[in-house]
Amino acid sequence: MEERLQKQLDFIREIDKIKNIFRQTYIGDGSRPENDAEHSWHLALMAMFLQEYANEEVDILHVIKMVLIHDLVEIDAGDTYAYDPEANKTKREREVAAAERIFNILPADQAKELRALWEEYEAEETPEAKFGLALDILHPVMENEMSDGIAWVNHNVVEDAPRERIERMRMGSEALYQVAKDIVDRAVAAGHIIPSEKYSKK
Amino acid sequence: MEERLQKQLDFIREIDKIKNIFRQTYIGDGSRPENDAEHSWHLALMAMFLQEYANEEVDILHVIKMVLIHDLVEIDAGDTYAYDPEANKTKREREVAAAERIFNILPADQAKELRALWEEYEAEETPEAKFGLALDILHPVMENEMSDGIAWVNHNVVEDAPRERIERMRMGSEALYQVAKDIVDRAVAAGHIIPSEKYSKK
Repeated sequence: MEERLQKQLDFIREIDKIKNIFRQTYIGDGSRPENDAEHSWHLALMAMFLQEYANEEVDILHVIKMVLIHDLVEIDAGDTYAYDPEANKTKREREVAAAERIFNILPADQAKELRALWEEYEAEETPEAKFGLALDILHPVMENEMSDGIAWVNHNVVEDAPRERIERMRMGSEALYQVAKDIVDRAVAAGHIIPSEKYSKK
Repeated sequence: MEERLQKQLDFIREIDKIKNIFRQTYIGDGSRPENDAEHSWHLALMAMFLQEYANEEVDILHVIKMVLIHDLVEIDAGDTYAYDPEANKTKREREVAAAERIFNILPADQAKELRALWEEYEAEETPEAKFGLALDILHPVMENEMSDGIAWVNHNVVEDAPRERIERMRMGSEALYQVAKDIVDRAVAAGHIIPSEKYSKK
């Protein structure tokens, strides 16, 4: 078999490991944590069916590709919980090393393309990256609501953290930000997220 | 919230159930069966990086969309094992009923689009559907090899069934058919698939 195809198949086999990278968020029925493959699949479907809510016009193929690959680096770097400030300090460094190893299993031209796609997503500057990020933030908020807030309760999440996080959705989708905000409001009211003075005064 | 967005969010929540639809195939490390969300994610990545092996030129967005949604009907209809002739007799009927219910959670225009996409995939006639099918057949063959053939051994698979099945890949990709054939050859040699007289004479 030619070397190019062999490298591509090696990559396809390598990325199977993402199915064992578990997130802090539970699947909707609350039975177990969700893994990165499931999360990425769900984001791609959200992109397909919620495209109309992007603030700017987006190339949907580009959005779908980015959300499908955005967590591949976690095969080496692990899942970094959004509300863990210490782990987030070393996130970029760990993920770049992972990208170097994992993406370069592919033939050079595809490795380069994949790296560019991932860096674009990480930079949060293009309309596609901003919309992808909005979906990436909305998805666990929806899953958390479906699973009665297990992940929020487990981590004693105070409302400041999710409220600051969902603010970043506004770059990509004001409409979906509103969806996330409504969910967080309900979760605070339900006691799944701990209220804070900062917001209760508002 | 407007009704359209509410329907779309209901659909996004409904399809979470696909994460509990388990296939006969195991994930690569053999630790547990794979679910449909993981399988669909993996197919989309294969489409992205193996596109050059399609027999005919394909619209890659179309391929990716089809493989991402192709198993949604299994939320109601369940996974039908490829080598179970009895279950395959009722497969179409069960899956059409599932499509009617699940797709129609969406607003009518999107439900119609999704139904068309799924029917196109099922019909195996367009270059995109044929290539998607080739990936859908190759993927479990690769997973089976990675997991030392657990699924083949569990089901006492005789080589005739996988050899007939992978023949269907040739409509979409001769090159990837060859990859699948090499894997089946190795699995027979390794004793993970039971040899048959029909092929041993060849």
